[in-house]
Parts: sequence; C-alpha cells; structure tokens
Amino acid sequence: MMSPHSLTVSLIQHRCVADVKGNQDTISEQIANAASQGAQLILLQELHNSLYFCQTESPAFFDLAESIPGPSTEQLAALAKQHQLVIVASLFERRAAGLYHNTAVVFESDGSIAGQYRKMHIPDDPGFYEKFYFTPGDLGFQPVQTSLGKLGVLVCWDQWYPEAARLMTLAGADLLLYPTAIGWDRREPEDDQVRQREAWMTIQRSHAIANALPTLVCNRTGFEASPEEPEIGIDFWGSSFVCGPQGEILTQAPADEPCLLTVKLDMAQTEAVRRMWPFMRDRRIDAYTDLTKRFRD
Amino acid sequence: MMSPHSLTVSLIQHRCVADVKGNQDTISEQIANAASQGAQLILLQELHNSLYFCQTESPAFFDLAESIPGPSTEQLAALAKQHQLVIVASLFERRAAGLYHNTAVVFESDGSIAGQYRKMHIPDDPGFYEKFYFTPGDLGFQPVQTSLGKLGVLVCWDQWYPEAARLMTLAGADLLLYPTAIGWDRREPEDDQVRQREAWMTIQRSHAIANALPTLVCNRTGFEASPEEPEIGIDFWGSSFVCGPQGEILTQAPADEPCLLTVKLDMAQTEAVRRMWPFMRDRRIDAYTDLTKRFRD
Repeated sequence: MMSPHSLTVSLIQHRCVADVKGNQDTISEQIANAASQGAQLILLQELHNSLYFCQTESPAFFDLAESIPGPSTEQLAALAKQHQLVIVASLFERRAAGLYHNTAVVFESDGSIAGQYRKMHIPDDPGFYEKFYFTPGDLGFQPVQTSLGKLGVLVCWDQWYPEAARLMTLAGADLLLYPTAIGWDRREPEDDQVRQREAWMTIQRSHAIANALPTLVCNRTGFEASPEEPEIGIDFWGSSFVCGPQGEILTQAPADEPCLLTVKLDMAQTEAVRRMWPFMRDRRIDAYTDLTKRFRD
Repeated sequence: MMSPHSLTVSLIQHRCVADVKGNQDTISEQIANAASQGAQLILLQELHNSLYFCQTESPAFFDLAESIPGPSTEQLAALAKQHQLVIVASLFERRAAGLYHNTAVVFESDGSIAGQYRKMHIPDDPGFYEKFYFTPGDLGFQPVQTSLGKLGVLVCWDQWYPEAARLMTLAGADLLLYPTAIGWDRREPEDDQVRQREAWMTIQRSHAIANALPTLVCNRTGFEASPEEPEIGIDFWGSSFVCGPQGEILTQAPADEPCLLTVKLDMAQTEAVRRMWPFMRDRRIDAYTDLTKRFRD
C-alpha cells in the first residue's frame, strides 16, 4: 500500500514565437531530450503552440484554434507514442463555429487521447482578455486516468481557486498539474512584480499542501509584445516548478530562460503525509454548503 | 470606497506556564504594551490561559474549562474596556457537563462580547489529542462584526482548510485571524521540521491570497513537556506572523522567543488587489457542489 514508486516528470518551459511550426519543433526536440532523461510524464505550458494572443481581442486569432482531435493532437499523439510517455498539452480548441475553449489534452503513452480538461475559470483583465476567446469549460473538475495515475489537470487561472484543486483531489487525483501563461507588465514597479510571482507560487504550493499531492506548474518565459502597442506587452515570468505534497519545492526553472525541468517524484509520499496530517478526515462537509454561493449576503 | 484606512494590530506570542494566573498576567502586561504602541486589535494564541493540555487524554484537564461568559471572559472584557481595543481570545469552553469546545471569543472595545467562534475542524494525532476534549463547533463559519470590521476568526487546525477561509470571505470578513498552537516533536529530523513550518506558513498565506485579505496568525512558543513522558513534548514553533492580501509577510516573530508583534495594516489594499485579481467574479459555483462530499467515489 505504501510501496515506494517513483515517477519522473519533465516540464518544458520555452519562449513562444509567432510561427506555430517553430513552437512545435521546440516542443518535439525537448520531449526527445526529456525522454533521454527518463521522463515518463511531460507537462507543457499553456497554449504552447502560439504567442499568447489574448493580449488583445481580435476575431482573426480564432484562426489559431483547432478541433480535438485535429492536426496538433495528431502531432502530439505521435510524440507520446514514439517516446512512450504521457503528455499533458494545452490547446486552443475549436468545438464548433463560435464555440472555443482553452483545453488541456492528455495523451497516453500509446498515442491515444486519455482525456481532456476544459479550463473552467476564465480570467479577464488588461492584457489577458480570455473571456473574449474561451467559453468556460463544461467538463467539470475530473482528473484524467492514465497508466501513470489520475492526473488532476487544471489550467492557469484555475490555480487561484482552492476549490478546483480540492475537487480534483476528492475525485482521486494523484498529481496536480497546471499549464500556465502568466507574466509581468513591465511598467509595474519591481516590488509589485516580486509580490505577484511569490503569490502565484504560494497559492499553488498551498494546493499541494491542502491535498498532500505533488504539484507541477509549467509557465512560458520571454517577452511578447502587444500586437497593438509593441512597446508594451507581457514579460512571462517562467519560474516553472515542481513541489512535493507538503509544498516543498523540488526543482524550479529560472524566470527568463527556456528550461527543461526534470525531477523524480516519490509517489508514496502522499500516503505518508496524509497519515500524519489527515486533513480529509476532518473536513466539515456538513458546513460547506455555502461554498456554492456567489456571496453569503 | 477606496479611502485609505489603517488598522494597527498586535499579536501576543508567549510561553505558557502551568499557573493560569501567570499566563493571564503575561497577557495583561502585553496588552498594555500593545495599547501603548497604538494597537486597536489584539490577537492571542490558542488556549493561552494554560499549558497545551491535549498532549494526553486526561479527564482531569476538563477542570480547566470555563463557561462563557465566565471568569476569563470577565478578565479579558475588563482589559478590552480599559485599553479600548478589540481582543480576540481563545478559551476552553464548558458549555454543559460533558460538552466542551475550543472557542474563540471576540471582545469589543467597550468590554462587551462581540461574538464567538467554536473551532470547527478538530485534529487528533499523536501529541494533539483534541478530539477527546473538544466537541466540533456548531456555529459554522461566521465572521464577528466589530467596530473595526468583520473578523474572520478561525482556530489552528482550521488553517489547513481553504473552505473555512473562503466561507468567512463570502460572509464579508475583512480580516482572517488564526489563534494557533503548533510545534515540533523534537525527535523528528530537522528537515522535516523546516518543511512542516514552511507548509504551515504557506497554507495560511494562501488564504490571504485566495481571498485578498490580511491574515493574522498567533502561535505559542517554548517547549512544553508531555505530562506522561517529560523527556518528550512539543516545541511550539512561534513564528507568528501578519501578511497582506497578496500573502506578503509584513512582520514575523522568532520561533523560540516570546514576542509582541505590532503592525499597521492598510485596509484599502483588499479592494485594490481584488480589482486587479478579481477571483470572486469567476468562481464556478455551478460546479462546486461536490465540495460537500467526503470523497467523489
């Protein structure tokens, strides 16, 4: 029951370019590198195939969307099969005309699609106009069963919601995984920037702690200019990381460089930690009903 | 609406002794010191009037419990009135014969009782046998209205539950406050100890972040021997802290020393942060129903 078993995971943090093929080539090369390092599971960053187009609201960008399955899933499925590893990817899904999602797709090591997750919490603030592009997910918070365990895949803005991580945990997730695309507005003072990144790390480490689950976070890096005002844009802060079930940082990428981040996880730790800190035993489910309210007024 | 207003808070971290009067004298003296520093709100540590008696299960320790109101609330009410400040205290409540709670009591600056909170999540693990002593709270997660705002008072083990902080927030809390009593087993390796304290800080900072609320945490310090095995016991790790609404540490006490920790909060920050990171806007309340389940199996 507590037999040790390890899981080697790789996160691919990279700079995106306008050319989709260029991004796919980077990913393909880094997956091969990860495989040579013994990776069994790959986590890619959010919307890894393109620049982060949500800096502006432009109907033309819907051309970047694809059906699932589609050309991108075929390419990723082939990589999963070739290297015999599980891949968690993040795509701009065209489900129907006028119906688009921000969708994570999980590929089994035989090249099949194990499952998908449609981003549930959609942000919208200056520079991150996602509500224009993405219909909120309708698949709920369901982990994806794979040969490596149940993957609690969530996407970016979901990272601020303890509810999402908890629901994945209650459904038996063995890991939490966050493809993400977050960065700084260069015009903000440095102390604001430091506080933002620290908050982003802290909240995701807290999901690991609250649920005693290893947590993987893969962010993009590099500056991407705004299509409307090229002198401004987003400095994606990289800093992809993996933490253990007490939130302890196991490995972390730099802020401003591409990075292939590989680490071996001890998957028996979750049970060991939960025996010491049995949070699930004591949840007051009789008193949580109002969590489904917008506000208790 | 966003007019700046400040709130000066003081946390009293101290070593407890067996003599209740000794602890009350320490608290009385430190509240006077805090008042002279301009404190408007005092947060005391969990069960500050006694040693942490839950290291063993002994029916005799129920003698420490008191009715509310009772002698301890009278003493604390007098201090609140004398110094004209709000006090958040933590008492062992005797509600009826055989019915005891771990109860936080909030005193208004005129000496009246503003409200109380009965600890909802009750731990039980070696050295912390709280399920023997405390009936789980039945007042739910309701902040206490005071002249200084709505206080989201929770107690110790509650700190591991994002649900508790969220419910306080949804009910309009302006601050989160945690009286706590947590420490190390000296027999554990140092790296385990470091990880535990870091997890404890991280999860509480995460409640500040998820809810954009300043968060106050007051822990006891010092070694308390086990009544059964005096060579073992709990090294309470102090480290009381106050963080702002992005989880940024504003001030922190040492691990192994008593400390009066005073800091001025900018209460306009919550609104400013929520305008930038409007997490409450995007909660998927349509998909949170299963949070009231024990497990989704």
